[in-house]
Amino acid sequence: MSDRGLLLVLSGPSGAGKGTAVRRLLELCDNIVLSISATTRPPREGEGPGHYDFLPQDEFLRRIEAGRMLEHAVYNGQYYGTPAAWVDEQLAAGRHVLLEIEMQGALQIRQRRPEAILMFMAPPSMQALEQRLRGRGTETEQQIQARLAIARGELAGAAQYDYILVNRTVEGAAEQMCAILTAERHRASAMEPFLQALQQERN
Amino acid sequence: MSDRGLLLVLSGPSGAGKGTAVRRLLELCDNIVLSISATTRPPREGEGPGHYDFLPQDEFLRRIEAGRMLEHAVYNGQYYGTPAAWVDEQLAAGRHVLLEIEMQGALQIRQRRPEAILMFMAPPSMQALEQRLRGRGTETEQQIQARLAIARGELAGAAQYDYILVNRTVEGAAEQMCAILTAERHRASAMEPFLQALQQERN
Repeated sequence: MSDRGLLLVLSGPSGAGKGTAVRRLLELCDNIVLSISATTRPPREGEGPGHYDFLPQDEFLRRIEAGRMLEHAVYNGQYYGTPAAWVDEQLAAGRHVLLEIEMQGALQIRQRRPEAILMFMAPPSMQALEQRLRGRGTETEQQIQARLAIARGELAGAAQYDYILVNRTVEGAAEQMCAILTAERHRASAMEPFLQALQQERN
Repeated sequence: MSDRGLLLVLSGPSGAGKGTAVRRLLELCDNIVLSISATTRPPREGEGPGHYDFLPQDEFLRRIEAGRMLEHAVYNGQYYGTPAAWVDEQLAAGRHVLLEIEMQGALQIRQRRPEAILMFMAPPSMQALEQRLRGRGTETEQQIQARLAIARGELAGAAQYDYILVNRTVEGAAEQMCAILTAERHRASAMEPFLQALQQERN
């Protein structure tokens, strides 16, 4: 058991249920914190600093230049990214950090932090995903079709992740993530300091 | 989720508590079976076919020759080994198979079945291991010292395993194994058939 926390990344199509499963994970599993993304988009009604770190674009670009973003991406003309300093502080303090980010950012993390654990949350079926998107009632038919097309594209990229979660139930998906965290903490590479301490123990 | 079961191997020093943790794992975790070893040593009082598959030495040697043992080793002049046919039947039927075997055999499995998942159960401390060995009250002081020396040797080889479990409590050790099984079932490589089915799903 290394003292350093683990870096976990979660991606998956819109409607797969990432947000709900993550909230349950934070209740279920000890010592794990959720990273807060930075963005240049303006806050929506009711959004505060707990949702995003809202930054002006020139400041965001300066931080990318200075290597202060672990990953970043542009959607609809707005920047989104993960501030590196906070993540590294948490990891150094022994807390596991979960990033809920898009595939583009996840693959940047894979390059920059090869030790990161990449999890992709899939729906149990495309039909179930479609039902969930319709059930939210927040998108037009055209938007739903666009999201389904994007989801199909993401499934093709999912094999690049370490783990594929299947969100049949919120509880099940949270338990899968918790099990992955437990397993990864017991990998032989992560346990090297423990094994060394055991071997050096005096009679 | 592949239809085939996973092959799990558990080793660890005498006194680490493998047997008790495995019994708890079988209660805790679905769809997992424990492999029964073959041996040439005579049955002890009270031992029946549920404990070992007792074989005459010439038959055991014939089976090794014929490649019918997944692994084998010699202790105190007696052969011990894992019959391949039963393991493969279980895996093909989608059941996960756990082998509780010594390091020598585990490393043979690593060669012959590179997909096998190797777990090493360590005590929380060498002092705890010594206390457990003494607590059993079944060994002489000399035997206890010999077992501790062997345990130190095994710790040096433990880094070759995939996972290191720490047996602080029976429940904790069983949960670690169960989490590893859950995580391994969700590895991207194991989930390929599921991802393909999702992508091929008709609208």
